[in-house]
Amino acid sequence: MRSIQQSFSVSYEYPVYFTKGVFEESNDLLKQSLEVREALPKVLFVVDGGVASAHADLISQIQQYAEVHGKVFRMVDAPMIIPGGEACKNDQIHVDRILAAINEHGIDRHSYVVAVGGGAVLDAVGYAASIGHRGIRLIRIPTTVLSQNDSGVGVKNGINAFNKKNFLGSFTVPTAVINDSNFLDTLNIRDWRCGIAEAIKVGLVKDATFFYSIQEHADQLANRDKDLMDQLIYRCAELHIQHIASGDPFEQGSSRPLDFGHWSAHKLEQITEHQLRHGEAVAIGMALDSIYSYLDHHLTQPELLIILSLLRQLGFELYHPSLRDSQLLDGLREFQEHLGGRLTIMLLDAIGSGKEVHRMNSEIIKKSIDVLQDYHNHNSLSA
Amino acid sequence: MRSIQQSFSVSYEYPVYFTKGVFEESNDLLKQSLEVREALPKVLFVVDGGVASAHADLISQIQQYAEVHGKVFRMVDAPMIIPGGEACKNDQIHVDRILAAINEHGIDRHSYVVAVGGGAVLDAVGYAASIGHRGIRLIRIPTTVLSQNDSGVGVKNGINAFNKKNFLGSFTVPTAVINDSNFLDTLNIRDWRCGIAEAIKVGLVKDATFFYSIQEHADQLANRDKDLMDQLIYRCAELHIQHIASGDPFEQGSSRPLDFGHWSAHKLEQITEHQLRHGEAVAIGMALDSIYSYLDHHLTQPELLIILSLLRQLGFELYHPSLRDSQLLDGLREFQEHLGGRLTIMLLDAIGSGKEVHRMNSEIIKKSIDVLQDYHNHNSLSA
Repeated sequence: MRSIQQSFSVSYEYPVYFTKGVFEESNDLLKQSLEVREALPKVLFVVDGGVASAHADLISQIQQYAEVHGKVFRMVDAPMIIPGGEACKNDQIHVDRILAAINEHGIDRHSYVVAVGGGAVLDAVGYAASIGHRGIRLIRIPTTVLSQNDSGVGVKNGINAFNKKNFLGSFTVPTAVINDSNFLDTLNIRDWRCGIAEAIKVGLVKDATFFYSIQEHADQLANRDKDLMDQLIYRCAELHIQHIASGDPFEQGSSRPLDFGHWSAHKLEQITEHQLRHGEAVAIGMALDSIYSYLDHHLTQPELLIILSLLRQLGFELYHPSLRDSQLLDGLREFQEHLGGRLTIMLLDAIGSGKEVHRMNSEIIKKSIDVLQDYHNHNSLSA
Repeated sequence: MRSIQQSFSVSYEYPVYFTKGVFEESNDLLKQSLEVREALPKVLFVVDGGVASAHADLISQIQQYAEVHGKVFRMVDAPMIIPGGEACKNDQIHVDRILAAINEHGIDRHSYVVAVGGGAVLDAVGYAASIGHRGIRLIRIPTTVLSQNDSGVGVKNGINAFNKKNFLGSFTVPTAVINDSNFLDTLNIRDWRCGIAEAIKVGLVKDATFFYSIQEHADQLANRDKDLMDQLIYRCAELHIQHIASGDPFEQGSSRPLDFGHWSAHKLEQITEHQLRHGEAVAIGMALDSIYSYLDHHLTQPELLIILSLLRQLGFELYHPSLRDSQLLDGLREFQEHLGGRLTIMLLDAIGSGKEVHRMNSEIIKKSIDVLQDYHNHNSLSA
């Protein structure tokens, strides 16, 4: 028996920009992100329908930008619009439409797909771009707090299938990410709030200073202070980017430390058919796993109360009847199945200090739900 | 404007084994390739229908192997059989069936899909595994000369869409590749021969010594000398593996030096609806581009004659009426489109020495086709 050992490394790089008015004529970020060779690069824009509605002039602004910079790139067609939110991930037809456009317009591996939208749209468009011709260049322009500070700056994309979140997907590195804080102005309060949930999560797991800075400014954030939100997004994106680079970027292991609170959150989203948004479900999931961390681990009661009261102060509803759904515990198994290998769940030893465990006790989960419901009803801890 | 630069590297490794009787009880390669953690790894086998027909006992052998090694892994279901050849890439239903099995059996990112078959089956199964849960571990067991010395040891997979070869796909690194030369015994002569075409290609582009060693043993190879074929496969796989590691593994550039002769080969396969097999089309494509290299570049007439006569000696038909199809030249554009960026075609300066060019002249292509037809008819060069 003979054998040959293959071995190589691949380096990945991309910039994440923070700007305002990405499609203003004078804003060079997008055009500078396009590599010009002999021929003008082709660009296909795909825009979140929700964002296009909230910004009535967005499509014409993109068209004007393409016209003004017609010597730098060629927009192959009017921007394609796909539904925002989980709808674009639940039906493969949207990915198929993007692939048909890639085919029709001869978009190649050196052309660009520019995705403008919330996290779900970025996920779906990124997935289509990653499988077309084995990978077309992708520029992400995230338009929500959640996508600007979390998924949009990362390397994952995907759509749902078999009633499972992100069952189909890939790890692919974007060419560039451009966060434009002007898009946040039109977010409704639920989407504004949702992004803060992920920032709290990163703080809880990795950075107590960041967590307490959110707590300090909770009222201003809840009241839509833009400068504070810019700071929160920058720091959260930075922590997220550092985490990807320092850890296991393509998740070959079983650990996913940034998924604190997510096993139940994913399931709650599914049970409620996405009536609960991701950030809202994550707030509930974090509340639940914080209580569990208090009941079964080292999180102290004062710390638990700080977490719960911050989430409440920001306006999150921390209890939902779907927590009693018999399917909830399937979320643990599905979480394990998606990531593979040993069940690995992040809990808290303290604020800013995550701790991975490999089992959760269903009785303690039930007890945690009771405690959470009680806190929700009476604003106090029964345990 | 602020920005954060993301930057990280990912290391990839996998072994390529050369063995006989991979599913014999005493052969440890497959089970050693499976990582055992707390729980037994789950394995889903997907087998090429053509291989299962040619080896009537293959399925029961796999089942017995799984039974004997039941303490090392758990086979989740009877091996799934999908059609061999391009059929499995032309209709997405086969990929969808594999994904349904991945869902049904709870195959996760630490489980394994083991693909047994020719290059097309490995491409389709690999694609399904790469998008399920953003990437399930894949073990390839290539069963043809072509897949054992070429595609099967590499990092590409995909299926056809919009009438374009490999329009959908991804770059993913297998966990292991196990080449079992016993599978070659039942290959029909066309498939036996096809794999030699890719070996000649690697020799022409990269390694004159290898090319001339094939020439030296051409009759024995044509007469199915197994030891010589083992040597050819090993050396060709080695060159292929080195090429991937030393170059641009995930093809971020525009160059694909190992695709000598492939722009027309891909198109001929499509025009003939895969009546021409890949290796047969590659033989024609190499003959065509060798003539072009002689007419427009530095390849000498004696070298050209050596190439054409070797291909003929091995039994390849070097002319096909589809070369006159008006769609042929679309192959150049599609080749560029798939890879992206500047058209980059490998031609020959000499045997063993490839030379990339960025345009091909359609008149010289037509002239090359005339010369090729003449050579086919009269066994001599008219130019």
